[in-house]
Amino acid sequence: MHQNRSGSPGDPSQHIPTDGVVAIVGVGLIGGSIAAAIKAHHPGWTVVGFGRDPGRLDEAREAGLIDVAQEIDGPPTDPQADFAVVCTPVGRIAQDVRAIARHCRDGAVITDGGSVKATICRDAAGSLERGIEFVGSHPLAGSEKQGWRHASASLFQQKTCVVTPTAENSESAVSMVESFWRSLGANVASMSPQDHDRILALTSHLPHVTASALAGLIQAGDFDAFAGTGFRDTTRVAAGDAELWTQIFIANQKEVTAALDRFSEQLSRFRSAIEQQDSQAISDMLAAAAAARKRLDHECD
Amino acid sequence: MHQNRSGSPGDPSQHIPTDGVVAIVGVGLIGGSIAAAIKAHHPGWTVVGFGRDPGRLDEAREAGLIDVAQEIDGPPTDPQADFAVVCTPVGRIAQDVRAIARHCRDGAVITDGGSVKATICRDAAGSLERGIEFVGSHPLAGSEKQGWRHASASLFQQKTCVVTPTAENSESAVSMVESFWRSLGANVASMSPQDHDRILALTSHLPHVTASALAGLIQAGDFDAFAGTGFRDTTRVAAGDAELWTQIFIANQKEVTAALDRFSEQLSRFRSAIEQQDSQAISDMLAAAAAARKRLDHECD
Repeated sequence: MHQNRSGSPGDPSQHIPTDGVVAIVGVGLIGGSIAAAIKAHHPGWTVVGFGRDPGRLDEAREAGLIDVAQEIDGPPTDPQADFAVVCTPVGRIAQDVRAIARHCRDGAVITDGGSVKATICRDAAGSLERGIEFVGSHPLAGSEKQGWRHASASLFQQKTCVVTPTAENSESAVSMVESFWRSLGANVASMSPQDHDRILALTSHLPHVTASALAGLIQAGDFDAFAGTGFRDTTRVAAGDAELWTQIFIANQKEVTAALDRFSEQLSRFRSAIEQQDSQAISDMLAAAAAARKRLDHECD
Repeated sequence: MHQNRSGSPGDPSQHIPTDGVVAIVGVGLIGGSIAAAIKAHHPGWTVVGFGRDPGRLDEAREAGLIDVAQEIDGPPTDPQADFAVVCTPVGRIAQDVRAIARHCRDGAVITDGGSVKATICRDAAGSLERGIEFVGSHPLAGSEKQGWRHASASLFQQKTCVVTPTAENSESAVSMVESFWRSLGANVASMSPQDHDRILALTSHLPHVTASALAGLIQAGDFDAFAGTGFRDTTRVAAGDAELWTQIFIANQKEVTAALDRFSEQLSRFRSAIEQQDSQAISDMLAAAAAARKRLDHECD
């Protein structure tokens, strides 16, 4: 179903030059962590942070996270970037890919860190010129914290990064992006943007909807004293940024509604078994779920 | 809606004698933690552990957690218990209340630690004789760990313990049970068994169903690499004991199905807004959920 190229990475830095200019658009938690990881793994590179808030970028520069701070909507910069990573919110990535392309040399490679891929890959790739290519990425790393002050050079260590090449991408651009993420410590999984969106709808976007729907049931506040660790764990992600997640749900609307339908079917099976007080059916479903959940801990702890 | 008596506890030990015999039925995580907390707060008490696995009880006795180990189905013990706490699985509590009553003195008070209250209070109270009373309790404390080896004297500190008196209970028995939990550090909330079951269906039983339904969607295992911290948090409780939770869902069937219906309505609102790509509606629902979830952290961290 998906092609996982992480089995034979060879030398992770084989496609990564020892020096060059990398542009990072959006120096928040993810962009800042990429900058920190580049500083750690590629000391010969110049890191240029691009954004729309020069004051915030200057602080990141003074802190040593980036070497240069640039206004993305300003005139083309010199030197031009060899490689760019767009880490802005999902709803703005495609336009920021076009915006950063003006600051890139001919044939440069651009990737991103967005949680949705099909719409972004479609919208971003079409408008590029001068041999510049966009290859989509989604590092499955993050934190409830936001902003570059929480950035960590080790954020991507042992984390999955999905890279989503399309038929329009050259082998060399795809290799560059995959090698880049591997060089920051990530395990790369390669698949189509559509497969990415279908899988992440289930493993990331759906849990956010269920957590938010649950948290929405205690809005009045009178049940707070009765919300124990189970409720807190199950709803933790619901505290996330409402605007960012709205953009994700809109951009992945088809797959998120499909995932919601699969989930609702599963929920109906539970409801029927509970209503009929069918102990065996309830127990079988709970045991299967417990086995699946425990497997995640064994694999990744 | 519910009567919270924790506002004016007075001296938490006012109704607690300085010595006596307390029976604990089921010396697992909860029963063992109650034993440890009694040792810490009521050194004059004799703690008798009752169960059906003498070997396991002897180990708890040798470890100093309980003073005496007894077989619950054996002949009436001497000395008789003044107070008993039944900490067996929900499906067995009512019969264990009747069983432990044989080991209690006339007028003794029995409580429990079960996650469901209406069926237990109904089934347990009816059959008691010699002035022995049952008052239901549910300490909202626990852990993914099981067994008395994980017991902690501080498990109930600052945790809510719901006490569910009925019209048949005497004021003195209710006071005894409330004072007992307060003396172990818990905040007591008093309400009817029916209110308890309705609220906990929403704040505890429902999240277990949604977590299990989510975890059930990744049974095949091929999506494990794409299940990040959000999925893991949201499904953590699904790793819990399938048999224990089956008993809870069966015992609270009516309220759990009602909570599932409320949740499904909420989920449908999200689905409609996402399908219609209604950014404002999605964002409003997510923001309300985020505010509710953040409030929990502010209140209890």
